[in-house]
Amino acid sequence: MDQQVKYLLQESEMPRSWYNVIPDLPAPPPPPLHPGTREPVGPDALAPLFPMALIEQEVSAERYIPIPEPVLDVYRLWRPTPLLRARRLEQALGTPARIYYKYEGTSPAGSHKPNTAVPQAYYNAAEGVKKLTTETGAGQWGSALAFASAVFGLECEVWQVRASYDQKPYRRLLMEAYGAKVHPSPSGLTNSGRAVLAEHPDSTGSLGIAISEAVEMAAGDPATRYSLGSVLNHVLMHQTVIGEEAIKQLAQAGDTPDLIVGCTGGGSNFSGLVFPFLREKLAGRMNPVLRAVEPAACPSFTRGVYTYDFGDTAGLTPLLKMHTLGHDFVPDPIHAGGLRYHGMSPLLSHIYELGLIEAVAKPQSECFAAGLQFARAEGILPAPEPTHAIAACIEEALRCKETGEEKVILTAVCGHGLLDLSAYGSYQAGQVVDFELPMEAVRDALSRLPASV
Amino acid sequence: MDQQVKYLLQESEMPRSWYNVIPDLPAPPPPPLHPGTREPVGPDALAPLFPMALIEQEVSAERYIPIPEPVLDVYRLWRPTPLLRARRLEQALGTPARIYYKYEGTSPAGSHKPNTAVPQAYYNAAEGVKKLTTETGAGQWGSALAFASAVFGLECEVWQVRASYDQKPYRRLLMEAYGAKVHPSPSGLTNSGRAVLAEHPDSTGSLGIAISEAVEMAAGDPATRYSLGSVLNHVLMHQTVIGEEAIKQLAQAGDTPDLIVGCTGGGSNFSGLVFPFLREKLAGRMNPVLRAVEPAACPSFTRGVYTYDFGDTAGLTPLLKMHTLGHDFVPDPIHAGGLRYHGMSPLLSHIYELGLIEAVAKPQSECFAAGLQFARAEGILPAPEPTHAIAACIEEALRCKETGEEKVILTAVCGHGLLDLSAYGSYQAGQVVDFELPMEAVRDALSRLPASV
Repeated sequence: MDQQVKYLLQESEMPRSWYNVIPDLPAPPPPPLHPGTREPVGPDALAPLFPMALIEQEVSAERYIPIPEPVLDVYRLWRPTPLLRARRLEQALGTPARIYYKYEGTSPAGSHKPNTAVPQAYYNAAEGVKKLTTETGAGQWGSALAFASAVFGLECEVWQVRASYDQKPYRRLLMEAYGAKVHPSPSGLTNSGRAVLAEHPDSTGSLGIAISEAVEMAAGDPATRYSLGSVLNHVLMHQTVIGEEAIKQLAQAGDTPDLIVGCTGGGSNFSGLVFPFLREKLAGRMNPVLRAVEPAACPSFTRGVYTYDFGDTAGLTPLLKMHTLGHDFVPDPIHAGGLRYHGMSPLLSHIYELGLIEAVAKPQSECFAAGLQFARAEGILPAPEPTHAIAACIEEALRCKETGEEKVILTAVCGHGLLDLSAYGSYQAGQVVDFELPMEAVRDALSRLPASV
Repeated sequence: MDQQVKYLLQESEMPRSWYNVIPDLPAPPPPPLHPGTREPVGPDALAPLFPMALIEQEVSAERYIPIPEPVLDVYRLWRPTPLLRARRLEQALGTPARIYYKYEGTSPAGSHKPNTAVPQAYYNAAEGVKKLTTETGAGQWGSALAFASAVFGLECEVWQVRASYDQKPYRRLLMEAYGAKVHPSPSGLTNSGRAVLAEHPDSTGSLGIAISEAVEMAAGDPATRYSLGSVLNHVLMHQTVIGEEAIKQLAQAGDTPDLIVGCTGGGSNFSGLVFPFLREKLAGRMNPVLRAVEPAACPSFTRGVYTYDFGDTAGLTPLLKMHTLGHDFVPDPIHAGGLRYHGMSPLLSHIYELGLIEAVAKPQSECFAAGLQFARAEGILPAPEPTHAIAACIEEALRCKETGEEKVILTAVCGHGLLDLSAYGSYQAGQVVDFELPMEAVRDALSRLPASV
């Protein structure tokens, strides 16, 4: 083979700004609403939860927001991340397609999540906050925030979805190694958690419930703020460093993408990869198909309703217009805990409604098979979340094998799966189940949506 | 801070040859001896265990051996690895020293071990071998060989030291994800294993025992060969890509090392980092102090005897002149399973006897504390093995704080600790014990050395 595999950038080529896609969209996304008044929520309403700098970013109309120097200094520990050409996977598949993957697993926490955890911790520390609370599904986000909190001297308290807390003890240990405190969710520490436990003592939890708990704890303490790892505009924007780097690296490789594939839970990995390419597409400089891949057990894009709903289970957040399966729908405990969210980022939902991106759903067994094939060809064992995108890449590459098309496919391996090995163990032991979407539970949950506005 | 942290090389700057230090030494190392005849073993005697290409490398007098293209093609998946300046750790310590670390945790298996696993699998496959057997301590080596075997289409069967097999289930799952078969050692599958179990049914195992089992299985099957992750000359030589890259990267940074520190178990990580610098030192081009750091519970350099001994417990290997605690000494089950070997590489032992390197021993609790301090400053959670080197770096950096010396310290973080989180969990729970070296057991084991020659 003897051909280049990695496309690297120097630290000096790291993006100096985050990209805000909103000003480039043909229509602005619908605003979040106050659940009582049904009026758009102003910045002040968010102040108990977030520092002002992040609230300003959330509603910003600027296309570019400069990355503060202290954030760049931490990014330097692992950024820019490599773009790799999956030559060995291509060869194993016998495809004429060229498959590239942006690898975010080189970060300290092993995923793309530190891209937003670091600025969130920085802005909170800069405004005098002492402690951050958050939820975590697979534990990727929790460990990222624990790392970022250690760097900026903040306390960090994490509510980890019970299913992941039990399946993935190493994630908890990593958060604790960085100095964080971790609770399984639902916990007995909050009203939201106690309410769920009263009704479902064996609840395996959900991101929606864990968010309620973390929000409740932050709202009750003036020195504490809440931190979210996906869904919100500012979070998606912080992740655009992924796509900005990938654009430069694909240019190094002399290629232009025909298809970009990413997994979606709350939407941050997909958006981070895709938004800079969407800018190029809207400007007519390239024309890639942009495809989101979600788990068949929690398919908010492909089976959810586009409407105003709460971001959490207890109904503590503003109302967000998004694709949702209902804020109190509890997805089956699939191994891709990071994709186990009842809703979808409102901004990404809006972009989907505008017809700028498409979406498909994949059952987890196909994804694990794809993950193992990838690991044995490329070496890297991907986290269960990006195996969804890898499965879709392989599907497309095999289609190219039929048609002979030399498509350029780009994806993001947003994290490694070294702390998800128990999930791979279950798969190899034949114990992974492809859950059917429980339509009755979804209908039930959708029947409890807040009255439409 | 805003100063460069990472020093990267392009794929095109990857070393094209391995460096063999032997021709540059003032005296050649003593040869391995046949245990029966006490004559030097010829290449033929090794042929049942190793392919001819590796046997030739083991005894080569060439200073440089070209790296085959198919090996370079796999190295490209992660090499060159980054050299990082530990600015945040320096700041946390308040030291004027400049600390650099070569980070080998970016490899698929998460350590430096694939540097030799890949060529070993390649040469075996090229000579028609179908299966490789090996031992593994912490599991770093076993997962590296499992990965390399997957790449070159070989079967792989691993005997994992019982203490690690029980403490580190994720390492086994990673080997299995790459398609390998894993047994705890001592096992009932070999004469060597059965002999140990007959005497010590609860044996936690040792690298020496696991080597006996893997060697025995390979020797009994003409299509199977044995693969060793450290100790031998060719293994140490494959690791010199680490030091060769580090020389170029330190030059990029404009620095020359005053002190190079590495952890030693069998010696491969230390040698890989140090040998190219030793070449420079012997040629008078630089003059760094070269310091090996071993665990206080298994201190072959600082408490062992320099003599001919077996490389394994059952006495199946040739006699090797090395620093040894006795081939049937079973070290306490420290968490740094990769450093838990009764002997030391004969080549590195010889270099120590020549006075070209020095050695110190560290108790594991000091190492875990250093590992956590490193993780909270630099983000990367190091494996328990390199925390020994990090502890020695921190010690030296604090000495520089006293004296005001701006020493340039270089080390290798030879692997990440993400699959060692249970060990960090034990440490944070106050359950890590600093074992005293059991001198009576060592004296016993040394009393059973083969008669001196």
